[in-house]
Amino acid sequence: MKIALDAMGGDNAPAATVHGAVWAAHDFGVTIQLVGQPDLIEAELAKHKTSGLNLPIIAASEVIAMDDQPAAAVKQKKDSSMVVALRSVKEGNSDAFVTAGNSGGALAAALFGLGRIKGIKRPALGTIFPNTSEYGHCFLLDVGANTDVRPEYLLQFALMGHCYAKQALHIPSPRVGLLSTGEEEEKGSILIQEVTPLLKQSHLNFVGNVEGKDVPTGTADVIVTDGFTGNVYIKGAEGVAWIIQKMLEREIKARPTAVLGALLARGAIKAFRTKVDYREFGGGSLLGVNGVVIVAHGRSDPYAIRHAIRVAKQAAENNIVDSIRSGVTEVVSINGKL
Amino acid sequence: MKIALDAMGGDNAPAATVHGAVWAAHDFGVTIQLVGQPDLIEAELAKHKTSGLNLPIIAASEVIAMDDQPAAAVKQKKDSSMVVALRSVKEGNSDAFVTAGNSGGALAAALFGLGRIKGIKRPALGTIFPNTSEYGHCFLLDVGANTDVRPEYLLQFALMGHCYAKQALHIPSPRVGLLSTGEEEEKGSILIQEVTPLLKQSHLNFVGNVEGKDVPTGTADVIVTDGFTGNVYIKGAEGVAWIIQKMLEREIKARPTAVLGALLARGAIKAFRTKVDYREFGGGSLLGVNGVVIVAHGRSDPYAIRHAIRVAKQAAENNIVDSIRSGVTEVVSINGKL
Repeated sequence: MKIALDAMGGDNAPAATVHGAVWAAHDFGVTIQLVGQPDLIEAELAKHKTSGLNLPIIAASEVIAMDDQPAAAVKQKKDSSMVVALRSVKEGNSDAFVTAGNSGGALAAALFGLGRIKGIKRPALGTIFPNTSEYGHCFLLDVGANTDVRPEYLLQFALMGHCYAKQALHIPSPRVGLLSTGEEEEKGSILIQEVTPLLKQSHLNFVGNVEGKDVPTGTADVIVTDGFTGNVYIKGAEGVAWIIQKMLEREIKARPTAVLGALLARGAIKAFRTKVDYREFGGGSLLGVNGVVIVAHGRSDPYAIRHAIRVAKQAAENNIVDSIRSGVTEVVSINGKL
Repeated sequence: MKIALDAMGGDNAPAATVHGAVWAAHDFGVTIQLVGQPDLIEAELAKHKTSGLNLPIIAASEVIAMDDQPAAAVKQKKDSSMVVALRSVKEGNSDAFVTAGNSGGALAAALFGLGRIKGIKRPALGTIFPNTSEYGHCFLLDVGANTDVRPEYLLQFALMGHCYAKQALHIPSPRVGLLSTGEEEEKGSILIQEVTPLLKQSHLNFVGNVEGKDVPTGTADVIVTDGFTGNVYIKGAEGVAWIIQKMLEREIKARPTAVLGALLARGAIKAFRTKVDYREFGGGSLLGVNGVVIVAHGRSDPYAIRHAIRVAKQAAENNIVDSIRSGVTEVVSINGKL
């Protein structure tokens, strides 16, 4: 298993990326190909114990910056770490690609470098989101690749989410829910009204429309939405977790009797923060392209990079791409179209 | 100050509504007109101390049920508590209307009974949302009245939100933000691209696009979005607060050292839950109709009803409706159109 990591991507690169790569190589026993400027990468590697770990460098002289215009940067910077890493995936020299760089750039580079799976109209970005089901999470998509969608895209997102939940998350018959403003079929936008019958007619285990409050309660294993709503939702969750923490800190300060309690309960509070931390579920999988692509948060620290590499390994091991390919073929063979 | 309360509306009506009304009449010194079936209301009133409180009953024989089809129910049930209460507002016998009943029914009844403010294309439902600014909250709209919108509706929502934040929340120069997937103008959906220039050209204090994570951080005082996204957002916040609580409880159980701490910190945790509880910010104000209309959560308990009555009192006292009326006139006089 060889994972190509964009060593230059992210707010804290290459320090955080290299550190995360060392950590992941140690913990998961995989080869991490560090793609980027060799001198910078070597300087970071020198700060860690790397003996016995497989951390080859793949040279790339350019970097797609966080504020670069995605499509233009991908076309112009042919020797950028993203473009070079994806070429390695395309040529079969890497099993997956991980980046914490410009996310628009990553989507454009993946589309351009790997191409869409035949039959898939729009790739989507999915992420796990914590819930109280036996699995501990559901899979939410799209969380940002497509801000404007058509009903048939959402049907395809549902199919890809089904494949991911089944193959990578090992949920035998994933329940698919459509994010809406009410459980009733007549609620929701025009788009929702148009997608609902498509999902009902599909071979997927469609359990109906779910509300924002139902995502964490485990009502569905795959939550389908457009990239605008999904993006607002996960960033909203991040914001809500943040303000709850702030409010808790303020309350603790205001109540002397709670200070001792807070100290003792610190372990518990820290543990829950880790679980709701965006870093934990921020490793988005780009589904619908011909390769495993994981887009991590720009603010990723070493822990988040390690996590994104784990997600990439999981997706590659479980043949997510092939699963989506056969899923599309199957649907086409049944319905004559997708 | 006379507030017409739909005594029959909500999952826990009339027990919770009458209880909340008694509480509010006592705490805020306002007259609460209990609209609904007199025998049921009297039976509930008998359970409370009401001496010295102004709690007149306005008889209405019918009820718009939670599962009634909104528009049809409003037309057919002319003697329903909602329709009767709104007639009282329309005729000037009540200063505001509060309901925890069928929210679609409430919107339809308000549109039908009070009509839109001249120049306003679509009324919107707004609600305060906790943040860490000096005011402790921002105003988010639309949270569910319009699942499909046009750019000009969002511009009007911004204007109405500005009026509400200034008049009812006493924020001198409310900063208006547009909910999107990134701060950069080029991010977001086609709708966002079309609304942004309208907001920039307006006389409002537009501070640009804000992400889901920025709503609680106090980046803007008024957050404008469509009713689909806004609804998913606030219900998502409810769900996230819920799962954080669950995770905290689970962690506490798993760590014996934290149990004592948890007991001592209970006061703090309880206080933060109240603040993030959907009941607290679930009293939505319907803006853009000719009257004060507050739509509370269907699951409202007496505390939530009391809160919704407080919001209604605040809106009526501060002449929100007149403020929106002059706002519209002003914009029309400057731009020649809205």
